[in-house]
Amino acid sequence: MDLLNLRVRYSETDQMGTFYNARALEWFECGRTEWMRQRLGLSYAALEGRGVYLPLVEAHLEFQGGARFDDVLAVATSAHLSGRARLRFDVQINHQSTGKPVVGGYTIHAFTNANRKPGRPPAWFLVMLDKTLESP
Amino acid sequence: MDLLNLRVRYSETDQMGTFYNARALEWFECGRTEWMRQRLGLSYAALEGRGVYLPLVEAHLEFQGGARFDDVLAVATSAHLSGRARLRFDVQINHQSTGKPVVGGYTIHAFTNANRKPGRPPAWFLVMLDKTLESP
Amino acid sequence: MDLLNLRVRYSETDQMGTFYNARALEWFECGRTEWMRQRLGLSYAALEGRGVYLPLVEAHLEFQGGARFDDVLAVATSAHLSGRARLRFDVQINHQSTGKPVVGGYTIHAFTNANRKPGRPPAWFLVMLDKTLESP
Amino acid sequence: MDLLNLRVRYSETDQMGTFYNARALEWFECGRTEWMRQRLGLSYAALEGRGVYLPLVEAHLEFQGGARFDDVLAVATSAHLSGRARLRFDVQINHQSTGKPVVGGYTIHAFTNANRKPGRPPAWFLVMLDKTLESP
Repeated sequence: MDLLNLRVRYSETDQMGTFYNARALEWFECGRTEWMRQRLGLSYAALEGRGVYLPLVEAHLEFQGGARFDDVLAVATSAHLSGRARLRFDVQINHQSTGKPVVGGYTIHAFTNANRKPGRPPAWFLVMLDKTLESP
Repeated sequence: MDLLNLRVRYSETDQMGTFYNARALEWFECGRTEWMRQRLGLSYAALEGRGVYLPLVEAHLEFQGGARFDDVLAVATSAHLSGRARLRFDVQINHQSTGKPVVGGYTIHAFTNANRKPGRPPAWFLVMLDKTLESP
Repeated sequence: MDLLNLRVRYSETDQMGTFYNARALEWFECGRTEWMRQRLGLSYAALEGRGVYLPLVEAHLEFQGGARFDDVLAVATSAHLSGRARLRFDVQINHQSTGKPVVGGYTIHAFTNANRKPGRPPAWFLVMLDKTLESP
Repeated sequence: MDLLNLRVRYSETDQMGTFYNARALEWFECGRTEWMRQRLGLSYAALEGRGVYLPLVEAHLEFQGGARFDDVLAVATSAHLSGRARLRFDVQINHQSTGKPVVGGYTIHAFTNANRKPGRPPAWFLVMLDKTLESP
């Protein structure tokens, strides 16, 4: 279920020679975006176009190993509803060639409308989400 | 006319051990923002609040010397109208302690309204801009 | 114990109009850096100069409220040893003017030498760390 | 000669709704990196491994049109020697679907060794560079 490969950019390194930690949260976002496109069948841009926003409320990251400039990383993402009004994405990023782990974690998102008012996810979203769980 | 001091963040370094080049454009933006607040007397946030946006149309950077994590840099910014519908900011960033140059350059901005339609700057903006030139 | 104030940069906003989530991890780093300088009396640059590196092994963030471009944020940081070979920083970032919370969380760091070999912190570091706990 | 396609990340947007300007310099770097791998046949990581560094000395960017989150951009890069001791990359980034221009410009790089001492490029590098000009 490797949904996305990405290369570590030079801009993502720091003087320690590995990737800068905050960049992992950007990679998590890339994983979510591709998960939506490929699994949900709806881009996140289209989701916002329908007035559904998913602001981040919580993030957790475990840094498991280094990754150097130009290394290819495999980003695996899954999602499920957490309670009635939260969406949780679990992400694991490994080296694409060796499978060695780089960083794993999760993000938890609220559902809001365009006015940033939080609420329950729309029914059509839940239908789409259910379908992603049926396919392996 | 050092309007802003900033410290190089760890996140701004790269594996070469100096700051990553794109970060200089962020520092230019910090310089513009402080110039507006201190010289123009109007924050850029307030400017956007009045419906005036300044999207970047051109940028030029010369990298003159290294800067390491935690170094304090002095950002000097000036601005003037370029033609009838462009605002140009000149920026010079030096080491605060030694004065050694780090990066210099300019950015050129269009004036647009909230719908991103370009045009001439509003008269009240020109009045404010003129006043900045009177004071040394 | 507000050790650091910082302004939200335009570059730190995203199209949702608030700061982009990964930027909070950069602010956590700014908080750690200032904590070291002010409380520990040793800059992180100097620490790396002595061969002590603090790579991130875990990070947790809770997003508590929005912050807009040019808002001034107050970053409060504290640190303590976690087990025998981990350093934990707790960070709380609030609006400087109103005290409203923006983002809080922690980061956990290993101690390594210049060859990235993990180990216990040096004794002189523990002495310095103890002193920070004596002063309120 | 579109050497690289990339999607605009959410993290690369700003509150104006388009990509944040400094991110274009990161895309330029992605273009250079792929040009090296595909045209030169040597990754930039391998180049640094051989002790050849290419620090940026000058950059110029023209912002030609907007690009939104999740848009696919095509990055076209070419390179040639500029004088005896500079390497120049020209980059043009367009929308992949429509060909509409987004940002173009160039970067100029010095050649240095691992100690950051500038000099002429090694002869083997010039041989490789010549070969890239023979193939269309």
